[in-house]
Amino acid sequence: MRILDALDIPIVLAPMAGGAGTPRLAAAVSDAGGLGFLAAGYLTADALREQIGQLRELTDRPFGVNVFVLGDPAVDVEAVGRYRDRLGAEALRYGVELGDPVGDDDHWDAKLAVLHDERVPLVSFTFGCPAAEVLASLRAAGTESAVTVTSAAEARLAAAAGADALVVQGPEAGAHRGSFDNEHRGDDLGLLALLRQVGAASDLPLIATGGLAHGRDVAAVLAAGARAAQLGTMFLACPESDASAPHKAALTDPAFSRTAVTRAFSGRPPRGLVNRFMVEHGEAAPAAYPHVHHLTKGVRRAAAQADDPHAMSLWAGQGHAFAVAAPAADVARTLARQAREALAEAAERWAR
Amino acid sequence: MRILDALDIPIVLAPMAGGAGTPRLAAAVSDAGGLGFLAAGYLTADALREQIGQLRELTDRPFGVNVFVLGDPAVDVEAVGRYRDRLGAEALRYGVELGDPVGDDDHWDAKLAVLHDERVPLVSFTFGCPAAEVLASLRAAGTESAVTVTSAAEARLAAAAGADALVVQGPEAGAHRGSFDNEHRGDDLGLLALLRQVGAASDLPLIATGGLAHGRDVAAVLAAGARAAQLGTMFLACPESDASAPHKAALTDPAFSRTAVTRAFSGRPPRGLVNRFMVEHGEAAPAAYPHVHHLTKGVRRAAAQADDPHAMSLWAGQGHAFAVAAPAADVARTLARQAREALAEAAERWAR
Repeated sequence: MRILDALDIPIVLAPMAGGAGTPRLAAAVSDAGGLGFLAAGYLTADALREQIGQLRELTDRPFGVNVFVLGDPAVDVEAVGRYRDRLGAEALRYGVELGDPVGDDDHWDAKLAVLHDERVPLVSFTFGCPAAEVLASLRAAGTESAVTVTSAAEARLAAAAGADALVVQGPEAGAHRGSFDNEHRGDDLGLLALLRQVGAASDLPLIATGGLAHGRDVAAVLAAGARAAQLGTMFLACPESDASAPHKAALTDPAFSRTAVTRAFSGRPPRGLVNRFMVEHGEAAPAAYPHVHHLTKGVRRAAAQADDPHAMSLWAGQGHAFAVAAPAADVARTLARQAREALAEAAERWAR
Repeated sequence: MRILDALDIPIVLAPMAGGAGTPRLAAAVSDAGGLGFLAAGYLTADALREQIGQLRELTDRPFGVNVFVLGDPAVDVEAVGRYRDRLGAEALRYGVELGDPVGDDDHWDAKLAVLHDERVPLVSFTFGCPAAEVLASLRAAGTESAVTVTSAAEARLAAAAGADALVVQGPEAGAHRGSFDNEHRGDDLGLLALLRQVGAASDLPLIATGGLAHGRDVAAVLAAGARAAQLGTMFLACPESDASAPHKAALTDPAFSRTAVTRAFSGRPPRGLVNRFMVEHGEAAPAAYPHVHHLTKGVRRAAAQADDPHAMSLWAGQGHAFAVAAPAADVARTLARQAREALAEAAERWAR
């Protein structure tokens, strides 16, 4: 894959939708020799075009854009209604209205049109695999593609559709799991085991992600066969990240020592720091995405503004406690240097 | 740690209690330059002494012995009784009696006496951490010690007790999870994330285990900072393993494509291939170990003899489908060669 072959350092920024990811953050990682990423999720097509423009003013280096593949999943409208009723007290507590729990396709057609127009170097997909024609038409525009997979079966589907690379996401990852369906099996393959099975199912280049928190972890997935490592949580506390102040603070706050997977905030199962909202509502939340996302949006925003981390979605991977508030270029270069040293050390020790 | 420093290859055999692990298997791995392991679990002290003697007739190389730390956990006797009632039909089906669901300490004192007498090179512990005096007295006999840990908190306890090394077991691992308690949280750190947290909590040398299925996975944990990799499932199909024929066959049978964690067979949560018994009884099984182990013993044995994999405990890690029926020395040497190649390749690619 052209873009992965050209990286100076094997570090890919994870796309972080919902505000944390910014053009500045993506530019910093690309300029450090890695691969920056924008997250198209939740943006309008116009806002996406604007972010791409901002990024291109900041750097000439390649970058990626991640897009949600939502389709039109059937949801249990009554279950969504019951969850809405349940959250009434939260809306009162934070002085906001609950959002309208509607479905949408996250502006799929309009965003694909922008990505075509803009001829972005790499587009990655999450929550599904686009039709082969979509990937072919991107390729015709000079755009490489990657599909996020969480199982060997998904890897086979993505390879059949013509993806140029696979983002292999272990259950250790923070924020939304990119599975093609909205199940939470709770018994997923760990990242290394998943890399092994996906590698056996496909010859595509692999980008490994999920809980990586140090250059040694980057070295580990490279030794395991990945071409690059993708990290999000480790960039969440950077000054270039627009994650809210309480979110950044919670990452290394001993009061938030555990992560868990919950549908409480969005109706899909992402991983985040365990907080009050998650504990109180997680079990009751229906599998309805993005319906529940819209429902809880106002509460989450009001909680962030009130500096109350207990009703926000504190997305975080299992390595969150190692996040540092350093400039993103420093984080990327440090990860790469540590990875290089770890590989050299292990290779030398076992060279005989 | 003396023993880890002296290994020719960074491969440690996982102790496999219940029959699969044999002196021949341990000797083959030690002779290949790795570290063979005997499993003391479920043996009498005399049988353990006999196995150590057999192993020493086969090899002069160092080896380890693993011991269960059971203590005397309180169990819910009524829940055990209800589970016994539930399993009556299974006993009828396989024409056996259910075992007596009693607790025991797996002959702790007698086994420790044997290990002292025999001055075995390394003793590892599972299901808990022995008192500091136990480790000190082993050290006085020239025996190094390792404690199996599944969290940073357990790592700190083991380090405080004076362990010489830690076996860091990810949730990807087959068979029993070595946690100090009998909980199944279902939200454990993946192996790489766990290695990172344990490494931050302790400076002890780490042996990484859990779902490793290829030399690339060995390379990964070495790059992540482990001193060696421990594998069990990859040795389960070897001719030197006494795993039953249906167990060996099931590892690579597409009909057994999933693993899950269940208390159905033993009352503790180990990982095994999903079969009928697990599906039908897993939810109902109480947290009572080794009580449930004794209860189901006859059924499991009869099922194995009847070549019926659906009422046996088919322990298997997440990499089970990659197990091969090759001699153990070949498996160990192949893993080491693949690891060396993977490290050299990744180190060279990212050397600049």
